[in-house]
Amino acid sequence: MTSSLEQALQYAHDNQSLFLDQLKDFLRIPSVSTDPAHHPDMEKAARYLVSRLEGLAFTHIQIFPTAGHPVVYGERLAAGSAPTLLVYGHYDVQPAEPLELWQTPAFDPQVRDGLLYARGASDMKGQVMAVLSALETLIHLDQLKVNIKVLFEGEEEIGSPNLDAFMREHKALLACDNALNPDAGMVYPDRPVIVYALRGLAYFELRLHGPSHDLHSGLFGGLVHNPAQVLCELIAGMHDAQGRITLPGFYDRVRPLPAEERAQLARDAMGEAFHLKQAGVSQLWGEQGYSPEERLGARPTLEVNGLLSGFTGHGSKTVLPAEAMAKISMRLVPDQDPAEVEQQLRRYLESHAPASVRWELEEMSSGPASITDLNLPATRALAAALETVWGKAPQLKREGGSIPVVASMQTILGVESVITGFGLSDDNIHAPNEHLNLANWSRGIDALVLFFTALGK
Amino acid sequence: MTSSLEQALQYAHDNQSLFLDQLKDFLRIPSVSTDPAHHPDMEKAARYLVSRLEGLAFTHIQIFPTAGHPVVYGERLAAGSAPTLLVYGHYDVQPAEPLELWQTPAFDPQVRDGLLYARGASDMKGQVMAVLSALETLIHLDQLKVNIKVLFEGEEEIGSPNLDAFMREHKALLACDNALNPDAGMVYPDRPVIVYALRGLAYFELRLHGPSHDLHSGLFGGLVHNPAQVLCELIAGMHDAQGRITLPGFYDRVRPLPAEERAQLARDAMGEAFHLKQAGVSQLWGEQGYSPEERLGARPTLEVNGLLSGFTGHGSKTVLPAEAMAKISMRLVPDQDPAEVEQQLRRYLESHAPASVRWELEEMSSGPASITDLNLPATRALAAALETVWGKAPQLKREGGSIPVVASMQTILGVESVITGFGLSDDNIHAPNEHLNLANWSRGIDALVLFFTALGK
Repeated sequence: MTSSLEQALQYAHDNQSLFLDQLKDFLRIPSVSTDPAHHPDMEKAARYLVSRLEGLAFTHIQIFPTAGHPVVYGERLAAGSAPTLLVYGHYDVQPAEPLELWQTPAFDPQVRDGLLYARGASDMKGQVMAVLSALETLIHLDQLKVNIKVLFEGEEEIGSPNLDAFMREHKALLACDNALNPDAGMVYPDRPVIVYALRGLAYFELRLHGPSHDLHSGLFGGLVHNPAQVLCELIAGMHDAQGRITLPGFYDRVRPLPAEERAQLARDAMGEAFHLKQAGVSQLWGEQGYSPEERLGARPTLEVNGLLSGFTGHGSKTVLPAEAMAKISMRLVPDQDPAEVEQQLRRYLESHAPASVRWELEEMSSGPASITDLNLPATRALAAALETVWGKAPQLKREGGSIPVVASMQTILGVESVITGFGLSDDNIHAPNEHLNLANWSRGIDALVLFFTALGK
Repeated sequence: MTSSLEQALQYAHDNQSLFLDQLKDFLRIPSVSTDPAHHPDMEKAARYLVSRLEGLAFTHIQIFPTAGHPVVYGERLAAGSAPTLLVYGHYDVQPAEPLELWQTPAFDPQVRDGLLYARGASDMKGQVMAVLSALETLIHLDQLKVNIKVLFEGEEEIGSPNLDAFMREHKALLACDNALNPDAGMVYPDRPVIVYALRGLAYFELRLHGPSHDLHSGLFGGLVHNPAQVLCELIAGMHDAQGRITLPGFYDRVRPLPAEERAQLARDAMGEAFHLKQAGVSQLWGEQGYSPEERLGARPTLEVNGLLSGFTGHGSKTVLPAEAMAKISMRLVPDQDPAEVEQQLRRYLESHAPASVRWELEEMSSGPASITDLNLPATRALAAALETVWGKAPQLKREGGSIPVVASMQTILGVESVITGFGLSDDNIHAPNEHLNLANWSRGIDALVLFFTALGK
């Protein structure tokens, strides 16, 4: 390690309590994007970021209004022909309710046993401030040799409804070589992570209509096709006995897993006991012929997210329901297309739904899967930085969930993201007593110092 | 017709407005059994019946308290060795809500175009008062030659939770030759009805438990068996392609339909157009090989009465639910036993539910089917009385629903019921603007005068 790098890490350590105070200031702003009562706090959080960027001598700092909460932008392009990295983050947080389950107030950050408790500490104000702390370190020492742009949105926790439009409008402004997305999380407490694939989503509401009104099940049972029964039959037919999805053509575009990658996923497998504990089940289930990690990251799935029909209160009511509804979503993998998947679902329904019911299908949400080449120079630089700090090569992970902005940046900006994060799986994100492991956070700042430095070489 | 019978019918017609006023008095009492705010009205309705029985010189009149609303009993055993008929009725009514949909207030009975509008007018205060009006006619003329007992309960609309216990406690008091149950309804406006079979019920709540808590469908989809999907698969398997129920042994005790009865049902069939209109569907559905009337009255069915799992609000939530619930009920026919049917359902679940979920089954309500011999002297007497008044032989109907008291009287008292009623299918029972067709009601009083007279011979 060069002496200038050692100096940078020393600086970061010496200023840890300053960085922590800055993070606490940010966490005290209850920027809950979904709650209209907190709209003034959204402005406040955006202005807080602006003040931090000003302190780091960023230029073109701007709060861009959108149809919802604003986007904060800034850039520091002092590195000439060096690469440009676009840092993504979000300054909004989940609601803190139920408040009574917090040991200390959600927006009064407090440290206990090395953990910083506050809503947003892990998801993702802590991650945003790790980036800004690493940048402050390098800027203070005049060692930042990469061009930086930042894009902080205020609507991630409500599905980023205005981000794609913003990116389409500001393609030139956002032009860069790569993006850094620190919104992922670590699986093992002692091993850093790089996420290189994310699943897409196609989410639908299926509504079946049978009789024109709820009927008495005694006076009509045996005469009328029950839409709740039909719904169950349709859903039951969507998987075969091998756990494969039966929609016509569903697997046609699914990219097969190369043998090398299967071996890599097997080496990094968390193991069945880990998954059983996380899910709270006594046995796993899924498509035959694939490991849990493959099923989760590299194979599409179809889930029933909700069911509703007829009488669901206490006791009994002898109703033959007029309607039945299911929320059904598919997690997609490269190269599946959400629009094609909708057509596959429609074809399935057209050929399987009986004429005795009428069906309606409404798309609620969708986005494609994304995958990044692990040989991208930025990815290799991040992997090296993480390995230096943790002493372990990062887990290379296919993520089962979706980070839609990653796919949006691919399709709208033509930019590949490197995805990491320093939150742990037991940080209680989206739940009471969310917290951030400060030792891990500090390692994250170190890794980002090394990463930014490597990119500038 | 004898002159004394002609005299009786004349008396009934001459006193029609008196009988109507008495019915209106009864209807003004909002005896809503399910609503604690109306408990004083339940007492009031019971006392009203007592005053009517006192006016008819009944003896042993008593308001029996129960764990819920009281039972009104009285008897008039002045006919010596003549048969004894036990008249069943209920004085409670359904709630009137939504009140704003009533053209005139639910408990302010008013006549428009020959229809008497009020909650309970058809179900079943009108039927109870038809019986009392016929009795008043015969008693006034000293022509009642049959022994009468009456049992009026106040909990029919909430499932009669205390009636079986009452009957078990008062078997001697209730001893009789036959019961009259006027709580059924006519199908055709111009044709009387005798119901000779009622289906039973076995109603369950099935709960499936998967993961210990709701999971993120992206982070766990592909790892965990989704209990909503499993529920759908289990329900889908409960019918085969012929619409038959697959529970093991389910049809073993189902009494086959004699060819003669099939012919009778075919002669009295309402026709497909009638059923399509009533149900508001474009096509009928059910067990292959049986007509609509056979499927409705003589064949068991299995219905999904309710489904609930996961997220059911507006929009999308990517949850893999921890639990899934279905309300499932079977309509039973002779000689199925509800307890055996529960065991059949349990055996089905034991052999079909995967080990990846845990299931619980709770019985919510049950009662056996009942069937009455059409050659019973009381049934033949009623059929003759109805035919005399309407000029048409009564429709002999197997009812798809349940009137649990009929089976209870069979099993507890060893008594067969003759079942009829003068309400029409468009009377809006259980709905706003319930009403009673007064011309039909008057015919009903006439028929009861003839019936009671015939029984006394």
